[in-house]
Amino acid sequence: MSEVRLERKVLERNDALAADNRDLFRAAGAYTVNLISSPGSGKTSLLEATLGRLAETLRVGVVEGDVQTENDARRIEATGVPVEAIVTGGACHLDASMVRRGFRALVARAGGRLDLLVIENVGNLVCPASYDLGEDEKVALVSVTEGEDKPLKYPALFHAASVLLVTKIDLLPHLDFDVEALVRNARSLRPGLAVFRVSARTGDGLDAWVSYLVERVVGRPRSAVSQSQ
Amino acid sequence: MSEVRLERKVLERNDALAADNRDLFRAAGAYTVNLISSPGSGKTSLLEATLGRLAETLRVGVVEGDVQTENDARRIEATGVPVEAIVTGGACHLDASMVRRGFRALVARAGGRLDLLVIENVGNLVCPASYDLGEDEKVALVSVTEGEDKPLKYPALFHAASVLLVTKIDLLPHLDFDVEALVRNARSLRPGLAVFRVSARTGDGLDAWVSYLVERVVGRPRSAVSQSQ
Repeated sequence: MSEVRLERKVLERNDALAADNRDLFRAAGAYTVNLISSPGSGKTSLLEATLGRLAETLRVGVVEGDVQTENDARRIEATGVPVEAIVTGGACHLDASMVRRGFRALVARAGGRLDLLVIENVGNLVCPASYDLGEDEKVALVSVTEGEDKPLKYPALFHAASVLLVTKIDLLPHLDFDVEALVRNARSLRPGLAVFRVSARTGDGLDAWVSYLVERVVGRPRSAVSQSQ
Repeated sequence: MSEVRLERKVLERNDALAADNRDLFRAAGAYTVNLISSPGSGKTSLLEATLGRLAETLRVGVVEGDVQTENDARRIEATGVPVEAIVTGGACHLDASMVRRGFRALVARAGGRLDLLVIENVGNLVCPASYDLGEDEKVALVSVTEGEDKPLKYPALFHAASVLLVTKIDLLPHLDFDVEALVRNARSLRPGLAVFRVSARTGDGLDAWVSYLVERVVGRPRSAVSQSQ
């Protein structure tokens, strides 16, 4: 089999598993977001700064993907929110079967129901964009220490994402970074993209992002099973 | 053919081409470095800040890899140093055949000889580590806005790299970043790793990095052909 055909087959198999995941998430009542960014854009720091507040009103669980080490999972664990670590051992992305394994373990720990599943993908702007995990939304993060043209250089992600978090905005005074240009580039690929400017360090902008997530969870579609509970 | 076997076959084919590249580079007199980092760690800015100085004494050429756009190649072109853009169109790394194509074009433009080939790989900490391009050295960049544990989370790169550039050190006063911890983590994987702390913005540390490169070029192995020229 050729390389291209094999890749297509791998992606088709993943898509089928992702469709099953969607049913599984819905049955458990879980709204699901998949956080994707470069390594070092601040996914874990953002979660550390927001999970506590989300967990006040919602049953939250985290699937934490990394190529190696469970360092990030330990950081999430310290917030008190249940987390399942997935070490991909070389793969540059999570896939639907890995996430299912993590989700099942989280739901078992939560007694069968979860309101919000947050998936922190492997730090990578290329591979995670191709792998549907069954999530409701892909959330792209770009820090203000990166380039304004990142969306144009990694278009697959920005076509697929519905939210952009511009992170580390506390550093803006020390940088020549044009947030408007970043947003313009991102929206040229995905018109209507929701944008939040945040700093995990100072807390700036986190209220709006937390409110957005809570509203999505409250308005999420529910299965007949979970509505009757 | 299984996914694992196919991947092995792709890597073997690449390794064979990389071995040919090594002969090709040597015949042209070129010392070759392969810059690898996350998107946004500052590879292109570092080149902008150093290529002019390198080009004073050396014949330099750049192969510029990106998933999409030739933005970075245009930035390099503005420095006056010859550059060949490789747009991978989705692939998360350069491979040996892409680099050969770029190198041949650069050598033709330089009249058959090149002292230093700089390859700027696709911004990615996973995929580029597996693909030998025939280079003399892999140079890893980590900016001080990323995490100190990046080497532990992406060990394949830090096993393979012989140089670590700690970039954006001008931002250190505004961050809680422990450079010593980063270096310790990197050297736990690669003892003896050469480390340079640099800022493309202020110029700090660039002298030492430029001197290192010039010394490597002067001391590079030469083929019988190029020694006789």
